[in-house]
Amino acid sequence: MKSNFAFNVDNSEYSICEFFKHTRQYTEILIKNLNAEDCQLQSMPDASPVKWHLAHTSWFFETFLLVPHLKTYRIFSSHFQVLFNSYYNGIGNQFTRSLRGLLARPSLKEVLSYRHHVDNYIQDLCCYYSELSPKLIELLMLGIHHEKQHQELLLMDIKHAFSINPMYPAYSITSGNMHLNKIAAPLKWFNFETLILEIGAKDTEFSFDNERPKHKQLIQSFKLASRLVTNMEYLVFMDNQGYENPQYWLSDGWSNVKQNHQNAPFYWIKKDDCWYEFTLNGLKPINLNEPVCHVSYYEASAFAAWAGKRLPTEAEWEYASQSEHAFDISCKSAHLHPHPAEGEGLLQLSKEAWQWTCSAYLPYPGFKPFADVAGEYNGKFMVNQIVLRGGSCLTPMHHLRNSYRNFYYPHQSWMMSGIRLAEDT
Amino acid sequence: MKSNFAFNVDNSEYSICEFFKHTRQYTEILIKNLNAEDCQLQSMPDASPVKWHLAHTSWFFETFLLVPHLKTYRIFSSHFQVLFNSYYNGIGNQFTRSLRGLLARPSLKEVLSYRHHVDNYIQDLCCYYSELSPKLIELLMLGIHHEKQHQELLLMDIKHAFSINPMYPAYSITSGNMHLNKIAAPLKWFNFETLILEIGAKDTEFSFDNERPKHKQLIQSFKLASRLVTNMEYLVFMDNQGYENPQYWLSDGWSNVKQNHQNAPFYWIKKDDCWYEFTLNGLKPINLNEPVCHVSYYEASAFAAWAGKRLPTEAEWEYASQSEHAFDISCKSAHLHPHPAEGEGLLQLSKEAWQWTCSAYLPYPGFKPFADVAGEYNGKFMVNQIVLRGGSCLTPMHHLRNSYRNFYYPHQSWMMSGIRLAEDT
Amino acid sequence: MKSNFAFNVDNSEYSICEFFKHTRQYTEILIKNLNAEDCQLQSMPDASPVKWHLAHTSWFFETFLLVPHLKTYRIFSSHFQVLFNSYYNGIGNQFTRSLRGLLARPSLKEVLSYRHHVDNYIQDLCCYYSELSPKLIELLMLGIHHEKQHQELLLMDIKHAFSINPMYPAYSITSGNMHLNKIAAPLKWFNFETLILEIGAKDTEFSFDNERPKHKQLIQSFKLASRLVTNMEYLVFMDNQGYENPQYWLSDGWSNVKQNHQNAPFYWIKKDDCWYEFTLNGLKPINLNEPVCHVSYYEASAFAAWAGKRLPTEAEWEYASQSEHAFDISCKSAHLHPHPAEGEGLLQLSKEAWQWTCSAYLPYPGFKPFADVAGEYNGKFMVNQIVLRGGSCLTPMHHLRNSYRNFYYPHQSWMMSGIRLAEDT
Amino acid sequence: MKSNFAFNVDNSEYSICEFFKHTRQYTEILIKNLNAEDCQLQSMPDASPVKWHLAHTSWFFETFLLVPHLKTYRIFSSHFQVLFNSYYNGIGNQFTRSLRGLLARPSLKEVLSYRHHVDNYIQDLCCYYSELSPKLIELLMLGIHHEKQHQELLLMDIKHAFSINPMYPAYSITSGNMHLNKIAAPLKWFNFETLILEIGAKDTEFSFDNERPKHKQLIQSFKLASRLVTNMEYLVFMDNQGYENPQYWLSDGWSNVKQNHQNAPFYWIKKDDCWYEFTLNGLKPINLNEPVCHVSYYEASAFAAWAGKRLPTEAEWEYASQSEHAFDISCKSAHLHPHPAEGEGLLQLSKEAWQWTCSAYLPYPGFKPFADVAGEYNGKFMVNQIVLRGGSCLTPMHHLRNSYRNFYYPHQSWMMSGIRLAEDT
Repeated sequence: MKSNFAFNVDNSEYSICEFFKHTRQYTEILIKNLNAEDCQLQSMPDASPVKWHLAHTSWFFETFLLVPHLKTYRIFSSHFQVLFNSYYNGIGNQFTRSLRGLLARPSLKEVLSYRHHVDNYIQDLCCYYSELSPKLIELLMLGIHHEKQHQELLLMDIKHAFSINPMYPAYSITSGNMHLNKIAAPLKWFNFETLILEIGAKDTEFSFDNERPKHKQLIQSFKLASRLVTNMEYLVFMDNQGYENPQYWLSDGWSNVKQNHQNAPFYWIKKDDCWYEFTLNGLKPINLNEPVCHVSYYEASAFAAWAGKRLPTEAEWEYASQSEHAFDISCKSAHLHPHPAEGEGLLQLSKEAWQWTCSAYLPYPGFKPFADVAGEYNGKFMVNQIVLRGGSCLTPMHHLRNSYRNFYYPHQSWMMSGIRLAEDT
Repeated sequence: MKSNFAFNVDNSEYSICEFFKHTRQYTEILIKNLNAEDCQLQSMPDASPVKWHLAHTSWFFETFLLVPHLKTYRIFSSHFQVLFNSYYNGIGNQFTRSLRGLLARPSLKEVLSYRHHVDNYIQDLCCYYSELSPKLIELLMLGIHHEKQHQELLLMDIKHAFSINPMYPAYSITSGNMHLNKIAAPLKWFNFETLILEIGAKDTEFSFDNERPKHKQLIQSFKLASRLVTNMEYLVFMDNQGYENPQYWLSDGWSNVKQNHQNAPFYWIKKDDCWYEFTLNGLKPINLNEPVCHVSYYEASAFAAWAGKRLPTEAEWEYASQSEHAFDISCKSAHLHPHPAEGEGLLQLSKEAWQWTCSAYLPYPGFKPFADVAGEYNGKFMVNQIVLRGGSCLTPMHHLRNSYRNFYYPHQSWMMSGIRLAEDT
Repeated sequence: MKSNFAFNVDNSEYSICEFFKHTRQYTEILIKNLNAEDCQLQSMPDASPVKWHLAHTSWFFETFLLVPHLKTYRIFSSHFQVLFNSYYNGIGNQFTRSLRGLLARPSLKEVLSYRHHVDNYIQDLCCYYSELSPKLIELLMLGIHHEKQHQELLLMDIKHAFSINPMYPAYSITSGNMHLNKIAAPLKWFNFETLILEIGAKDTEFSFDNERPKHKQLIQSFKLASRLVTNMEYLVFMDNQGYENPQYWLSDGWSNVKQNHQNAPFYWIKKDDCWYEFTLNGLKPINLNEPVCHVSYYEASAFAAWAGKRLPTEAEWEYASQSEHAFDISCKSAHLHPHPAEGEGLLQLSKEAWQWTCSAYLPYPGFKPFADVAGEYNGKFMVNQIVLRGGSCLTPMHHLRNSYRNFYYPHQSWMMSGIRLAEDT
Repeated sequence: MKSNFAFNVDNSEYSICEFFKHTRQYTEILIKNLNAEDCQLQSMPDASPVKWHLAHTSWFFETFLLVPHLKTYRIFSSHFQVLFNSYYNGIGNQFTRSLRGLLARPSLKEVLSYRHHVDNYIQDLCCYYSELSPKLIELLMLGIHHEKQHQELLLMDIKHAFSINPMYPAYSITSGNMHLNKIAAPLKWFNFETLILEIGAKDTEFSFDNERPKHKQLIQSFKLASRLVTNMEYLVFMDNQGYENPQYWLSDGWSNVKQNHQNAPFYWIKKDDCWYEFTLNGLKPINLNEPVCHVSYYEASAFAAWAGKRLPTEAEWEYASQSEHAFDISCKSAHLHPHPAEGEGLLQLSKEAWQWTCSAYLPYPGFKPFADVAGEYNGKFMVNQIVLRGGSCLTPMHHLRNSYRNFYYPHQSWMMSGIRLAEDT
């Protein structure tokens, strides 16, 4: 098979079909320590079972590539078209989201068969069309990046599911503790000057529709923190009655924490007067030098108000990430929980925790959704949500860009979300 | 091991330890067609995962027999004491009932180990105490009958869980259809004269605390239907606007069906203008000669009002079940769905579907709960529930008595509940 | 107008029309201290605005007497037929119960005009038919007793509404404190022998349908407390961790108090470490000698369990109330809060607080609802509720009988409900 | 009293104290057709009783002006400090918002006394300080504009409350129908060129904190509709299955309309196959030429998507409103429902219905809340809401500016909200 789309990964040139294959394999690597029961857990409506992620990502390739573009394709199961449709009204009905955890059937084994069925046909597709059309390449890239999004979701969701179990199972028993004695790099502030900047994805790279079109924005001068807020800094906020003082909080945020009797980040647990944190490596004592994570927008905003600072806009973040200060230590090994900041420059941009901006998730001027049914990808979610920028330790490789826009509701915190402060100049 | 408690099963004499063993084995027979994912399903707070039933029944023996009475007993896992406590406040905390489906760990495999661990120690107990004390025999009998109750619950709960899945998985693929052409025996009415009757369990047999003490009641003359109401009869009620006419309904019942947009028994599904029923053998067309089942008290009561009859009191049922008319065809093979009435006499008393009475579930005069912690067994549920009498095709063997009192909330219908009519004379 | 139905009130003979007139006037006396805004309050779905009670009782006479039986009757407003229908599906639609407090229009003034309009026509009816038919007398009596029920509801509902207001308005400022120094009569136990008793209303007196038919019951010997449980006795229960110990509680009751964070009777309020009680005379310190009131069935049952006693059945209560011991001090003046027990014999039967029985509210054997549309009066509520017997200080005169069956859901406590203990012998 | 602050109203110069007086009087004019019961209605948690508005606006002057700045001030009632605090955590506790309709006491009469009590003291304050300090003038202006906001809320809330009543009471019986035969001016599109514009309130005029600070924004060229969308245009959307086709809707919007079974704007009612609209003048047939109003952001957004257009940003709206095209017919008489567009130019900017923008309600760069406790005025609501611009027929005179930012949650529609379309060029 001749490569019809070459790109660079770790200094090697891969074909898109290899990219597809690696991505699909990596998903299955992620579940190697999970049993069939683990893979079925759905601990809240916002989360999905691991098994569902495995099936839905396959459904995506089946529905948008194989069915319309490969004549020889044989549907694996007509039931799956409904069961594993997430939210595509253009495709048809969907199984009720909050009940996904009740699908014991198909079993994990059947779902893996479904995956391999789809994988084989995609290989066929690549062979059949020796030169894939731009349209097919675009859809294949979309499917691959879609799967990468679900790789992070899968880790977020199994973490949430395990956190409900009083035995606190560990997703991975490899210790995340080699950096126990590291001190977080000191906080610095970088200055950025007023300018008119072009925001959005470059024409030459893959991106989601929500990162387009490129457009100009007038950005006033500002300062940005060199690293994420640490657990230690967040504990000072907590000790200063941060959760008891409404003056720091948005009104909806205050209602939210009071209603949930919340007084700490999402996975924090107090035992015998000490704070612990549930992680994918199990329950462990809070490490003061690590970035605080699993905070909601309400908490991020309250912390910033308490600190006399603010959160950055997404344009400010994009501006800074393109600057000379931007610096992201390349982690040799993947990690399941953020590490303390280390080194100089603008640190922890995309490898530790997503960063809440103060920007509402809205269409860029002139925004056009993807064509056809895939058009439901991003646009219809552009209300009530807040943009996060950067990336996290759970984000798979080869997925991010400076223009990447992640988004969640302001009350959510089961994603790997952290805080980077900004300030007016 | 010398048998210290002999009783008759299928004309053979069994020791209580053999009774224990058979009962425990039968539970595991019930799950032989289920995979680990099936066993974890919890489709509503009222239901529990199969895996949880497997563990909880073991917890019962561990907690009430082994821990207090066998010095050499080694606890399997301290976590399980909380996880598998159902509602015994006297024992300690309980894991939140509605979240039982989120316990991927312990896995099914571990739970089966737990079962065998407990089984082995109970065997030890039987050997160690060559003659079990009356107290221990009583607790063992309670544990065995407790497990038999959970055998029926397990079937009810997996049926409910599978019913949510649009693929309608069958618990058993053995056809339940050999009686497809059978016509239900015609409905007759039996007369019973006014008398003062002694109600309640005999002193010489095992019973739950709620069947005691024996006491006298004055029962006025009445008539009782010879068999259960059939699907055909219930369809006439439906065709007569039974679900649209409030005059037949209790006020709370009317609110209940309107709020749930209910217009048929619980597992009935209309497809292409035909009624189907979800059963443990999968989805099948309604068989008009079978007893209607999975009806709530509200539906049973509305049907009776529409028919110009009423439901029997539990005392009336007990009276009739002791009469010369009482007749229950012994099913050679277990069945997973009720069969049409066949033969003469007072039919379908205990082998097809439980029968709603019009009696609130209340303590008998002079009621005393079981001693100690097992005292939470029945008494604390004696409000807001209605008594059902008889038994069902899902009830395991050697479990029932004429005095047996089953009870559910009036809105519930995931149990195998049917209707037998009564009338004043 | 010739009296066609004479009965005895305070040793004078009244016609039924005079009975009607007195009853209607008394309702308006009850609102003389309330302004239009007070009369519109609906503080929970179970309660209705005073204004609604005023209109609904008139609607009852209009709908069941005037429209069908007086040709010359002119409907006051067609809107009112829907707005003031409580729950009579046989009559037609009803305005949503929980929104009754949103009916600013009709104004109180208009509702009073509606009352007088109806009153005038009923007078006409009495004149027109110089001898009222038994059917009309029956309906008129039903309407009068229906209005008397709403007189008590009106007081219950305004009490609840005022209790929400942090200014704690008093319905009446006449002090209820003249008995501040009275000591409650000591508790005695009366023995009753086993017998077969005829239960239910006499044929010769008015009664609701639920008190009929008379029928025989076998009642086992029992003991009954001479008076209601006092606040002092209830405080001992509270001090003994009554609300913290699940062993005393029915399972549904335990869920109920825990969910509502309840640790005292309904209108009790702790201020500066002292218990106060909201009454129709405003907020006042707890009087230890008064009967405890506004307790739910769950609380009554838990108190009885803690005390090692039980609640009486309704048949036991009726038996005792007909005995030689029965004794009810006739209060010269109406009172708005129960008084301490005073005197000898079986005290506080019907003039202080309703008494929870342990009997579910069910039809008597052979029960037949009232004929026609008034048939929705009682029967359709015969599930999920518990019988209370006796009467309360809020019950108007000439309304009660020994056979009177009041009923509420076990969690409710905004009615004037108290506790009388019983015991097996 | 010497005027220390002069401004122009209808070409006359008024002192701020006269402005205060006129504003306070106008509030009482608004209730002249309402009785005490009307003034107590609270038909949903988002709305408040008219009586509460009357009291709360007085509380505002009492709390922020009189108590801190007038030594001789005597508190009217200590209860009112809690009862009529809306959401100022800095001031102290608040009575539960959703229960405001349960405050029969204080009566309307007492609340009016409270108003006059406060009015008199403010007069004193003006006399006492012959020259009001800038701080006091600022607070007085804030209080006046705060009251004007509540004048519009009062009308919105009584409209909602009356709409629940099946008798559909009219707030005002003056006919709003003199424009029945008017044809809406034809829709035109105005072009606006790319520019960098200064957005926000001028330093020299009163404004709320959320309109500040002035700052520059880069606005790309766009087109704006000359008038609001009419009922006729909206009916075409409805007839085109607008409410049945998810492709037009934001995902949260689709959930919202499906959950509420919504298929028309908020106050539209279908009777005998014709659409009617509930207005402050009572129920009336839809006038096709009037602007559609009481639409949610979700509806506005879906309509725009269906029409192939979009909603304007708030910056675009402000740009256009300052242009030569801007033109607002001055209504001689106040009106309670929007009128059809009439004339040339950019019409219906601020006198008919608020216009949904597509801008999230966020702080302007460099935003600082008002100092002290009044700082809770706007800032804490800056999440989850959407900006509306313009004004409505319910907005009182002398309240608006081009920079005025109104804001509501995207699902809300009980305010007078309409749609103006925009388009990219």
